[in-house]
Amino acid sequence: MDLKRYLETTKSLIDKALDAYLPPGDKEPKSLHRAMRYSVFPGGKRIRPIIVLASAEACGALKGALPAACAVEFVHTYSLVHDDLPAMDDDDYRREKPSCHRKFGEANAILAGDGLLTLAFNIIASDMPPSIAASAAKELSGAIGTFGMVGGQAADIESQDKKKSPKELERINRLKTARLFEASSKLGAITAKSDGRKTKALSDYGERLGMAFQAVDDILDGDGSVKLFGDARARLYARDLIEKAKAALKPFGARAEKLEAIADHVLEQLTT
Amino acid sequence: MDLKRYLETTKSLIDKALDAYLPPGDKEPKSLHRAMRYSVFPGGKRIRPIIVLASAEACGALKGALPAACAVEFVHTYSLVHDDLPAMDDDDYRREKPSCHRKFGEANAILAGDGLLTLAFNIIASDMPPSIAASAAKELSGAIGTFGMVGGQAADIESQDKKKSPKELERINRLKTARLFEASSKLGAITAKSDGRKTKALSDYGERLGMAFQAVDDILDGDGSVKLFGDARARLYARDLIEKAKAALKPFGARAEKLEAIADHVLEQLTT
Repeated sequence: MDLKRYLETTKSLIDKALDAYLPPGDKEPKSLHRAMRYSVFPGGKRIRPIIVLASAEACGALKGALPAACAVEFVHTYSLVHDDLPAMDDDDYRREKPSCHRKFGEANAILAGDGLLTLAFNIIASDMPPSIAASAAKELSGAIGTFGMVGGQAADIESQDKKKSPKELERINRLKTARLFEASSKLGAITAKSDGRKTKALSDYGERLGMAFQAVDDILDGDGSVKLFGDARARLYARDLIEKAKAALKPFGARAEKLEAIADHVLEQLTT
Repeated sequence: MDLKRYLETTKSLIDKALDAYLPPGDKEPKSLHRAMRYSVFPGGKRIRPIIVLASAEACGALKGALPAACAVEFVHTYSLVHDDLPAMDDDDYRREKPSCHRKFGEANAILAGDGLLTLAFNIIASDMPPSIAASAAKELSGAIGTFGMVGGQAADIESQDKKKSPKELERINRLKTARLFEASSKLGAITAKSDGRKTKALSDYGERLGMAFQAVDDILDGDGSVKLFGDARARLYARDLIEKAKAALKPFGARAEKLEAIADHVLEQLTT
């Protein structure tokens, strides 16, 4: 399988769908809609929505997974916009351009985040079959709320000036990063109306991949677990998580080749 | 009907349910959960969730409407917390106590708002029958997003230093206030699985009541439409809206007595 080509094609498919879901920038209130579009495009690698699609495909039902994929990406973008705010991580730049609040002001950035978060649920409610929309919205809201990303960001801020224990750091990474990865793969399973065993397998895959993704990010930045354990142990940890993520894919056989390749790809960033 | 008693009993029922939905304040991350609880309690009159319940009752099915009622109140609270932020309306006080960000800091206030908004969708997805959860989430997200409250707040901020035209002011009031009232009465209809005619009637009721509610608020504060038209015309406008809201209730006959009394109650605040 040509992973590079798959990632490119799929990103472009997702980008088109994201564009169609966002209100046009010349529609009132313009600054709000422009702030939302500015935060979503050009965007990153779209790894989370790609995981939604590849997971649905592993369950044998790619069709109909695009709304859930877009919802996940809008949620991810909302979290970046709010996390960058001066009262939070105070980041002036995001993906090599001024962060949303630097460009559109803080009020528009707060509202753009709120708008993106709300849009995610609107998409699930409007464009997923009603028979699975509730279960998708439950999974996604669980990954966002106070026992997901929002709780992780709050815990991170609470412990900002303290030295974090390895356990605390792992808990924060699980909430802030891995939980949305887990929701992404589970949303693929939900879209495909998979059985419990496959859903659990994809949940394990997503969670482990998300932890590995964060570990790789830390290694590239010399941050987080690298500060606690050093570079060598952090690399071993990431490698182990990727192996465990791939091991979870066993029930899918060859159908999981894309998910496997994505897992390898996350690790490869350490060598390129 | 003893409206005062009805409002008191129903508020206490709603408060109990809100309390049960909120994570306890001694559960990590504590400051986040405390900030959410601080913003929800003691709270106001809970008029929006009461409208959800009274609308469901008018459709002959009060049972099962409490989750939707709580979701609406959490959405309302989230909007107050974010609107009070320094970058938005910069309000230091809310309901005679320090606003959320004054008490818990800006980061926690942003996250508490995000958490409350997410909790609203989690409740709909978890505690409403799956057959109606999607339609409820669609209605609620439509009332919140960029063509609802979020859009209204953005338009309000965009026009902050300009003199608003009557048309612009009406549009902002519709988005910022009336849209969530409309969603509240419609959620009652959705819970009760009402037919299209009754749902439309309740939608009209909620929208007109919401516009009247805002007009009354403006009259009491000497703000908004009062500045544009003067006190006397603003009172006529509010009275006319209340009459029109009550007129929409015709299909329900005596079953709408609570909704009628609530409409009268909104207007009575001008005379007490």
